[in-house]
Amino acid sequence: MAIPEFELIRRYFSSAWQQAPVPELCLGPGDDAAILQMSATDQLLVSVDTLNVGVHFLPDSPPERLAQRCLRVNISDLAAMGGEPVGFTLALSLPDVDSEWLAGFSQGLAAAAREAKCPLIGGDTTHGPLSMTIQVLGKVPAGQAIRRDGAQVGDLIYVTGTLGDAAAALQVMQAGSAQLSSENVDILLRAFYEPTMRIEAAMQLRGLATAGLDLSDGLISDLRHILTASSARSRSNLGAEVNVSALPVSSAFKQVFPEFQQQVERAVSGGDDYQLCVTVPAEKARQAESLMADLSVPFSRIGEIVTGEGIQFHNEQNEAVLIHTQGYQHFADSV
Amino acid sequence: MAIPEFELIRRYFSSAWQQAPVPELCLGPGDDAAILQMSATDQLLVSVDTLNVGVHFLPDSPPERLAQRCLRVNISDLAAMGGEPVGFTLALSLPDVDSEWLAGFSQGLAAAAREAKCPLIGGDTTHGPLSMTIQVLGKVPAGQAIRRDGAQVGDLIYVTGTLGDAAAALQVMQAGSAQLSSENVDILLRAFYEPTMRIEAAMQLRGLATAGLDLSDGLISDLRHILTASSARSRSNLGAEVNVSALPVSSAFKQVFPEFQQQVERAVSGGDDYQLCVTVPAEKARQAESLMADLSVPFSRIGEIVTGEGIQFHNEQNEAVLIHTQGYQHFADSV
Repeated sequence: MAIPEFELIRRYFSSAWQQAPVPELCLGPGDDAAILQMSATDQLLVSVDTLNVGVHFLPDSPPERLAQRCLRVNISDLAAMGGEPVGFTLALSLPDVDSEWLAGFSQGLAAAAREAKCPLIGGDTTHGPLSMTIQVLGKVPAGQAIRRDGAQVGDLIYVTGTLGDAAAALQVMQAGSAQLSSENVDILLRAFYEPTMRIEAAMQLRGLATAGLDLSDGLISDLRHILTASSARSRSNLGAEVNVSALPVSSAFKQVFPEFQQQVERAVSGGDDYQLCVTVPAEKARQAESLMADLSVPFSRIGEIVTGEGIQFHNEQNEAVLIHTQGYQHFADSV
Repeated sequence: MAIPEFELIRRYFSSAWQQAPVPELCLGPGDDAAILQMSATDQLLVSVDTLNVGVHFLPDSPPERLAQRCLRVNISDLAAMGGEPVGFTLALSLPDVDSEWLAGFSQGLAAAAREAKCPLIGGDTTHGPLSMTIQVLGKVPAGQAIRRDGAQVGDLIYVTGTLGDAAAALQVMQAGSAQLSSENVDILLRAFYEPTMRIEAAMQLRGLATAGLDLSDGLISDLRHILTASSARSRSNLGAEVNVSALPVSSAFKQVFPEFQQQVERAVSGGDDYQLCVTVPAEKARQAESLMADLSVPFSRIGEIVTGEGIQFHNEQNEAVLIHTQGYQHFADSV
């Protein structure tokens, strides 16, 4: 049986984090990152993720790209909360000492660290099946973190960049790319291995976005996280209406998935995009759009938070669109 | 070829942590924990460790004890620096969802978290070979962390508790315990699975200890870390003289290793004890001893920092004692 990771953690470990609440802990497990109050003015964000060989990546994945992806994915969690990276630790398990692999991996790591201004501050290297756990630390002015639980009825839903490129990349890696130009293959592989870290964009959205996260599990799953957390906090039933015609997709993605319905399904269910998904009150929408334009960050309004439950999809003509796929879940049988 | 973990990290990842030095980073990889300046008055300590099945523990290890050990070992790193725990994250890879195992593991985790006042603040659960990476965060008043690099000639060397109990436990687990009482078996297994976290002791030693760490790799290896770091910082050659008759060992340990030379070898080379090893200037020795006595923490003076190189061992009669074993090294062939 597939049990989602958050459910696993919640069920078994709730006692471990309730045992000893400390005054510094503002937000525990469940959001992209935990929040700790470090001083009157600053909060610390903490996020951790593991990638295992055979589960999250293939054994022959190029080490440089793997490192890039691993660090970027983690920094994306901080970025989604409006955090500024401070540093990261790396726990690396290696089956053997392969100098060439290590050189490539460390180069990829250094490149992503440089781009994010997020240095390696510590680590542990052990013997074992190839696995990497990265924990990133970031900071945010007290109370300004973008959490998952602040969405309200009437808020507009935005995503950055394009959706589904990582899903298209996986399709290409698994089934080949006969019909694609090498340029488009490159665009998709880069989307998968080097997802854009929306650090500056999310920092600009502090105070404007009522809720937000990065799209790791796919829009359906992740938007549900916002709805669930925000419903619980506001003690009301929040749902979402999403216009499938407004979903931003790349031309490379469209080449891989030529059918429109297929495009919609993959765009809303494909994981690993690490784009931001935020909710913004209507009266702040213009300001948010303008700030993103200044940063040249594509920022698409795809829907609205409504009273109700779940996510309803519709097209440009406001006709209901049925989605058959579910969001990505860890502990699934496939990659 | 066995390459020590710190050498691996240093060689390949130095560029990743030099790429983007941030003003907050006071101490990077190499000590028990990294130090980040979070405010004018407080520093954050960050430490990470991984335990892999088949490398650091056996597949049939009792989950509750495994969790205890995993968290305690990590918190010990913070404690060794005089840090006060703030919280920890857990990255857990599981081959399957085994409710019984998870219940035991989470109970052990909760027990150690409660004792250390260190709550779980976040985590990641993924599919893969059994592996756990714990990262602990702690805090220390600015500038008061006990680092590895402050030892000076004339400082006295102390250890807490007893040495070699974890090595004796491994011996018992591997070769049986026919000659031991069940009480002594229990003492040794507890030393291995539930090492004492010297949180309060190390906090009391702030400002008294010039250098310190927790004994994870064995006294020889770990004392060398202090000598190497302190020699580099003071630009002098520091060595150590250790009185083997002063090494504190338990009666259970002596039952497992009845020969005196064997006791000495195991006490100085056995890893996984997680006792503190600190250097204290002679003029502060009485104060330190008194504070440890108040906490009922066994605190044995085992030697002295001298001008020279390496560690010289001698007995009560000041005769040289030759040690044949080396300290524990990761990436070795055996567990």
